[in-house]
Amino acid sequence: MKLVSFDGGRLGSVDGDEVVDLGQRAAAAGHPGATLEDLVRGELLDDARRWSLAGLPRRPIGAVRLEAPLCRPGKIVAAPVNYRAHQDEMEWPTSVEDLGVFLKAPSSIIGPGDEISLPYLDVRTDQEGELAVVIGRRARDVTLQAALDHVAGYTCLLDITTRSTEDRSMRKSFDTFTPLGPCLVTADEVADPDRLRLRCWVNGRLRQDASTAQMIFSVPLLIAYASSVLTLQAGDILATGTPAGVGPLSGGDEICVEIERVGRLEVGVSAERATAYAERPRVAG
Amino acid sequence: MKLVSFDGGRLGSVDGDEVVDLGQRAAAAGHPGATLEDLVRGELLDDARRWSLAGLPRRPIGAVRLEAPLCRPGKIVAAPVNYRAHQDEMEWPTSVEDLGVFLKAPSSIIGPGDEISLPYLDVRTDQEGELAVVIGRRARDVTLQAALDHVAGYTCLLDITTRSTEDRSMRKSFDTFTPLGPCLVTADEVADPDRLRLRCWVNGRLRQDASTAQMIFSVPLLIAYASSVLTLQAGDILATGTPAGVGPLSGGDEICVEIERVGRLEVGVSAERATAYAERPRVAG
Repeated sequence: MKLVSFDGGRLGSVDGDEVVDLGQRAAAAGHPGATLEDLVRGELLDDARRWSLAGLPRRPIGAVRLEAPLCRPGKIVAAPVNYRAHQDEMEWPTSVEDLGVFLKAPSSIIGPGDEISLPYLDVRTDQEGELAVVIGRRARDVTLQAALDHVAGYTCLLDITTRSTEDRSMRKSFDTFTPLGPCLVTADEVADPDRLRLRCWVNGRLRQDASTAQMIFSVPLLIAYASSVLTLQAGDILATGTPAGVGPLSGGDEICVEIERVGRLEVGVSAERATAYAERPRVAG
Repeated sequence: MKLVSFDGGRLGSVDGDEVVDLGQRAAAAGHPGATLEDLVRGELLDDARRWSLAGLPRRPIGAVRLEAPLCRPGKIVAAPVNYRAHQDEMEWPTSVEDLGVFLKAPSSIIGPGDEISLPYLDVRTDQEGELAVVIGRRARDVTLQAALDHVAGYTCLLDITTRSTEDRSMRKSFDTFTPLGPCLVTADEVADPDRLRLRCWVNGRLRQDASTAQMIFSVPLLIAYASSVLTLQAGDILATGTPAGVGPLSGGDEICVEIERVGRLEVGVSAERATAYAERPRVAG
């Protein structure tokens, strides 16, 4: 099932070229007005997968406004350097093995068609296309073998990153720095998350082309590892790291990330709010 | 007003040596069952400050179980090196001026009387006593002058930190690594958050004794700066950094942090779950 949030939090399912409005089914199941995020947090996706689409209102997918499938997860846990080729291109001495995971702010999420807002005119900000795992069931100290049982589904994510002196968790948490979507593809549709082709284009030029098979920490290991540090809750998002090919963004750019079986996410880039690095408030203070 | 969460999310106000149960007032105001976190997120503290305590049920403070005043904020934004004397003791070349802010996981919050769980037997984990600011009104690009208008109140926080190779946001986000409480002291009771004595004891021995006047970024500057990076939402928590005197913790330790006008938070330390660093799951994987 490909679940979406559309037109102001409405709950939908993609069926071919149409979005089916699941609002009636959610109400009949005792969850009137439930958003996709409510279903995930309530661990109700298994129920939703059994809902019949027959007789429900439908609209062409091009006629609705798709939104980020989740917009206020409890946390976003991310893998810093999880592909060797990306580690090599950045000439970093360490990888996820040493760095563990880091956090991105939930307030940085935007949806398909939204715009990334560049903060600085004179500091590079990069695109990083990634597979995102949405947690569907509480996970604490889970084993490698049981890890995938805690997954609700998958979606596309851009881990936008400014290359300044600030702490990693901040450089990746400016408002608009986590484009997410368009669909939450339920876990049953992705037999092996560690064998998916991932591509990312900027202005139609291919920048990233890799397989999740190249990840240093596989999806199960990332879940097991993260769950040994902090309790993962339903609705939390795990960003699995980006392959080689990251590069700078400019105002007016169009980014597209596409992951096999998972979907295709497109967003724009704006430099309208960008200022010189030296003009940030701490200097004024 | 000193607001507390007690006995499983009940909403209370401290009056002398007693906790007054505000449940009836919340219900009468149209918020039956509201927790303290619900009030803060709903920007309802100004209403709550006008509620009369007359005739409400009361219990001795020692007879209730106090909990963290907030347990799932949208985010915890923290200042990494915000006191020069702490920068000096750690021999760090950079401070909040270069590092900006970082994130802690909301899932790491525990309350008064709870226990910090040390993750590693052979890696140092430190106590860091801090003043916490609770955001009461959405803040985006606020000025220094307007910053304090966005504060709901203050509480005590311990930013527990493991000194391992992982990313800062992870080393500070293990489950139990953010003791918080005991009260949310509303902003009207703290005329100047930049002039508060902060002390922290471990097993009765004083380790930290400083004034928030020594912060590199004042509370208003921290709010202004953080709000230039990410939107602060009602219920978000800002940890303002720790002064000199951090030090290692061991199983069985008792920590107490006391902040003038704000309160006194006590927690324990357990090594029961600690393992050797080399035994963490990434190595097994």
